[in-house]
Amino acid sequence: MRALVLKSGKLSYELNYASAPPVPPSKSPLIPVRVLQAGICETDLQLVAGYMNYEGVLGHEFCGIATEGKYTGQRVVGEINCGCDDCEYCQRQLGRHCPHRTVIGILQHDGAFADQLYVPEENLCPLPDSVSTEEAVFVEPLAAAFEILEQVSFRSGDRIAILGDGRLGNLCAQVLHQQAGEVIVLGRHQNKLNRLKNFGIETAFAEDVPAERQFDFVVDCTGSPSGMESALSYVRPRGTIILKTTVAGTQKLSLAPFVIDELTLVGSRCGLFAPAIKALAEKRIEVTSLIDSRYPLEEGLAAFDRARSPGVMKVLLDIGNE
Amino acid sequence: MRALVLKSGKLSYELNYASAPPVPPSKSPLIPVRVLQAGICETDLQLVAGYMNYEGVLGHEFCGIATEGKYTGQRVVGEINCGCDDCEYCQRQLGRHCPHRTVIGILQHDGAFADQLYVPEENLCPLPDSVSTEEAVFVEPLAAAFEILEQVSFRSGDRIAILGDGRLGNLCAQVLHQQAGEVIVLGRHQNKLNRLKNFGIETAFAEDVPAERQFDFVVDCTGSPSGMESALSYVRPRGTIILKTTVAGTQKLSLAPFVIDELTLVGSRCGLFAPAIKALAEKRIEVTSLIDSRYPLEEGLAAFDRARSPGVMKVLLDIGNE
Repeated sequence: MRALVLKSGKLSYELNYASAPPVPPSKSPLIPVRVLQAGICETDLQLVAGYMNYEGVLGHEFCGIATEGKYTGQRVVGEINCGCDDCEYCQRQLGRHCPHRTVIGILQHDGAFADQLYVPEENLCPLPDSVSTEEAVFVEPLAAAFEILEQVSFRSGDRIAILGDGRLGNLCAQVLHQQAGEVIVLGRHQNKLNRLKNFGIETAFAEDVPAERQFDFVVDCTGSPSGMESALSYVRPRGTIILKTTVAGTQKLSLAPFVIDELTLVGSRCGLFAPAIKALAEKRIEVTSLIDSRYPLEEGLAAFDRARSPGVMKVLLDIGNE
Repeated sequence: MRALVLKSGKLSYELNYASAPPVPPSKSPLIPVRVLQAGICETDLQLVAGYMNYEGVLGHEFCGIATEGKYTGQRVVGEINCGCDDCEYCQRQLGRHCPHRTVIGILQHDGAFADQLYVPEENLCPLPDSVSTEEAVFVEPLAAAFEILEQVSFRSGDRIAILGDGRLGNLCAQVLHQQAGEVIVLGRHQNKLNRLKNFGIETAFAEDVPAERQFDFVVDCTGSPSGMESALSYVRPRGTIILKTTVAGTQKLSLAPFVIDELTLVGSRCGLFAPAIKALAEKRIEVTSLIDSRYPLEEGLAAFDRARSPGVMKVLLDIGNE
């Protein structure tokens, strides 16, 4: 089958990629899913740059059609963390922290930038007709935005600054604007900020908002190591920084402000798919305006180049037809 | 008056120290307190090493006698953060985060290593007879241990590792053992660990406990920059690191584990005095066994040398008589 494969730090398009199916730890049957569309994520760019030392087919944001099992013939998305069902995390609906897990397109599990991938049936979520295939590609990153609501309790009137107007910043802003508190997005791109303004979300250029430690919550969606320093300058004493940015390597940081100002830092990653699918089905969250461009799978390398360009939002790969 | 004064990075004992009274921001009357006894804290050592660029009389753990106002003649301790009473922090009983505050012996407010200091009357807490003067010196660090209970919710059965068997580690262990969950203290000194065992608290040498990310909570009381790395190796995914260690300067840190494992970091500093005084009055917390030695004020420099020695617990300064 056709696939975008990362090997020895190099991404290549292969016409006849063949690999053994992945071996996720659960007993749930492994379902072949024919991929329709997939999205390139910041994490994919990091993986190519060496993060996690991953080798195999990339891709964890996808929509496809199940070709076996109880969802045969249906459009599905798949939760990317494939847990064991037995450990204490799995039993608390936290399979995304299962120590035995594979992670689709990220950890010992070939991903979705291919004609087909394998997903444990229990990870599959069938899609309602009201969610389009291209919207469905956003379920995974949107679930990551909803994850914040699983982790943090907001109080009415909380002031929330979101740092970064990119893909994840946009989704977090929409979710928190609706369900958390008074959101402002601090960004660097007029066109991206305008898009958020259209949703009624307050925005500003980061450099125009003085760092006066005025926010109860600061969500770092910058994707940059400098996001933390910036977050520290905006968060109030006793406030909370929600860290969405993942970067490989170490950075220099003073931890004293965390103690002196009794700050809380909450790392936030993947979320449950159900709230994201529901929000898309109910048209509460708008994602298609985030699509920058589409490439056929065979132009995947060009698609990655595009995704890496500064300021580019979501790049999709068109892989199969319904 | 006699005082231990930090100036231009040098600590000296002065026989005739005279300074204008501090100017804390509240309207509460400033009460002269004749100091009986005071304790040397890790923060004092850090201040001498340059932390906060503080200049003035050191000392923020103390017990004295109020010589004016409504507590005249009574033994008192004093909350060290002197807030404005007006800001949103002060109005939420969080004067310890008031942006206008002075901090006794730490920020623009001469401290307790002197015959007398000035404390806003609202900061004073009269002591019950059942709390001895030397116990009272521990109210401030004990309040810092109780602060954890103000910030974090524990669930029954939570496994809590406390890193560090020093002064603060001991107090945090006693508090959390009684009121939070299953505590184990990981330390390096047999005699200090034995002291905790006497309270029925589980202990171990840090090197004997494999770092298997097995604890729900890890409290870093090491006082060392390496404490964070250690905490990261002991905390489970979705767990919480409570940071008590304050060190000046920056350190290299990878923030990716916080995101991947969705960890929470909670910086924790000073606490309210009332729970600490109550616990001492009810003999629920034992502190006098932490006293390493006592020095008269005029031997304050020797007392600091002693406090700086590896493995030393609390060094007290005897300053006045009741």
